[in-house]
Amino acid sequence: MITLAIDAMGGDFAPNIVIQGTIKALISNKDLNINLYGDQKKIEDYLKETTTKNILNVIKTRLKIINTPLYLSMNAQNIREAIRDNTPYSMFVALRDVNQLSSIDGFITAGPTQALVLASYLIIGTLPGIKRISLALMFKSIDNRTRILTDAGANAEIKEENILDFAICANYLAQILLNIPEPKIKLLNIGIEPNKGRKMDVNIFKLLSNNPKINFQGNEEPNNFFNTEADILLSDGFTANMILKTYKGTAEMYKNNLKKMLTNNFYTKIISKIFFYKTIKNHFKKFNTDKTGGAILLGLTRIIIKAPGNSTSYSFYHTINQTIDLIKKNFLKKIIENFQ
Amino acid sequence: MITLAIDAMGGDFAPNIVIQGTIKALISNKDLNINLYGDQKKIEDYLKETTTKNILNVIKTRLKIINTPLYLSMNAQNIREAIRDNTPYSMFVALRDVNQLSSIDGFITAGPTQALVLASYLIIGTLPGIKRISLALMFKSIDNRTRILTDAGANAEIKEENILDFAICANYLAQILLNIPEPKIKLLNIGIEPNKGRKMDVNIFKLLSNNPKINFQGNEEPNNFFNTEADILLSDGFTANMILKTYKGTAEMYKNNLKKMLTNNFYTKIISKIFFYKTIKNHFKKFNTDKTGGAILLGLTRIIIKAPGNSTSYSFYHTINQTIDLIKKNFLKKIIENFQ
Repeated sequence: MITLAIDAMGGDFAPNIVIQGTIKALISNKDLNINLYGDQKKIEDYLKETTTKNILNVIKTRLKIINTPLYLSMNAQNIREAIRDNTPYSMFVALRDVNQLSSIDGFITAGPTQALVLASYLIIGTLPGIKRISLALMFKSIDNRTRILTDAGANAEIKEENILDFAICANYLAQILLNIPEPKIKLLNIGIEPNKGRKMDVNIFKLLSNNPKINFQGNEEPNNFFNTEADILLSDGFTANMILKTYKGTAEMYKNNLKKMLTNNFYTKIISKIFFYKTIKNHFKKFNTDKTGGAILLGLTRIIIKAPGNSTSYSFYHTINQTIDLIKKNFLKKIIENFQ
Repeated sequence: MITLAIDAMGGDFAPNIVIQGTIKALISNKDLNINLYGDQKKIEDYLKETTTKNILNVIKTRLKIINTPLYLSMNAQNIREAIRDNTPYSMFVALRDVNQLSSIDGFITAGPTQALVLASYLIIGTLPGIKRISLALMFKSIDNRTRILTDAGANAEIKEENILDFAICANYLAQILLNIPEPKIKLLNIGIEPNKGRKMDVNIFKLLSNNPKINFQGNEEPNNFFNTEADILLSDGFTANMILKTYKGTAEMYKNNLKKMLTNNFYTKIISKIFFYKTIKNHFKKFNTDKTGGAILLGLTRIIIKAPGNSTSYSFYHTINQTIDLIKKNFLKKIIENFQ
């Protein structure tokens, strides 16, 4: 059996989409337990409203609700103080349980990133030698290859040496999860030459080049984000976040414009339905930003997953499945061994 | 008459595309003179090869070639030394002429950005009170509104106060060129709240909020790059460059994937040709990154334009026309008045 702790109250559409994703996951994974942290009344009311008796019977022994009615808003402030004062926000209560109970295999939340990063750092703690944790996003690109982007937004600001921590953790992630013996690592930058970018980027280039533990292949420009030879793309969290948001905006704009153009009059509407329905659907599916899924917090001694704040029930369900995969592949045990 | 200095040797496909763009511009603008700086033999040979006698007759009195066979490579190093030592690179010779001859109205190059920024700063000089110059890119978005992005790549690294210079210059640009009395200004950031981003971004937010000369409207996330309410988007040059490159990569990927899907078998190929040829062509046209055109170096006492390094003859021609528009609208005179 696998047991996951899940924050029911995190994300833009909590708790409803989290509950929906949780039910879906429990139905499709018979060896899964879920501990749901949140407002018990809200959760039970929602379950009563939306779930049939049959389904409730299938999942009830494997779903445990832990009543934590307080929760972090997506724009929460004074996180450090709230952790120190033991404020019983759903996310913090869950993280303390994960830290104390080895029976829990991992934790997922769609709550605010900065709060999760700080709370995980303070409550869970880092692997030996790791000073900063990072968010690793795994994304499947158009060539159907999975790549890792890190730091995808845990640290708005970093020091040069932090990126080595990110590179080393992501290296293990690619080895263990993607079965790549020597993952190719590149640094996202405005040009490919070693002297390109900010002072920080020039220094990071040198640091990465001189490290024998990783297979550093130089800089990569973000226009090659989706067809890079690299298995791992490195960046500071601010820049990575800006890149991801630009990608999302461009993808949305394309989608809307194309839809409008294909249905701009009666004939094109009919013809595009008949001949291109599947084609266009597949085209959009390839760029579905919902499918990006959760990001792994790397550098911690437990499995902690950040689902997107705007998760839908489908993408939250997808994130749960990703987490199960990580656990089944013994990711945590293997990365801890590597750090001993 | 308008007289432009043009660097024939700058850019990935120089001098050919520059010469082509120049000829096109001279043909379609009868009141235009162009001084072309570059390898005279190469330019004349290319003209002989590709241009008919008729066309040569139309343009010959308005085209002057200044023989500067030395030129900067796109990855040129030691720029500062080369300027100090008076190395006669085509770009530097042209900039010195622009600085000394008031008969020249502006300068265009597709050569390396960092060299152009430094050489313009040292040879041309800045407006009173401006410490850093910035690149302002004007882009027409899907809603057909022109917006300004600055700094689009002049400064990989900035101090907080520099961005105020960029904002004030871009403000005049929008007023003079786009006829917007109080341009809306936003700062590109990872979130809309004032406390989002790096320490630098939080400080910049305060600086911009407290300045009465501009209409600052807060942060903007880059997923809204193309439908923002702002007329001017501010960013440091590194981040802006990363955003532009991500946009370009996403756009290319979409285009290629869509093309492949619409022509994946005989029937869809025929039908898409018959019914969607125009639709798809228009769709791509809207996102044609070629049309982005040149960027203006803001903060200088002369009109200096950076054309994209990968300019085609069409986009270089487009950049020349943009520059003529700027000159006809008396941009330089008006901005200098504002700084007195």
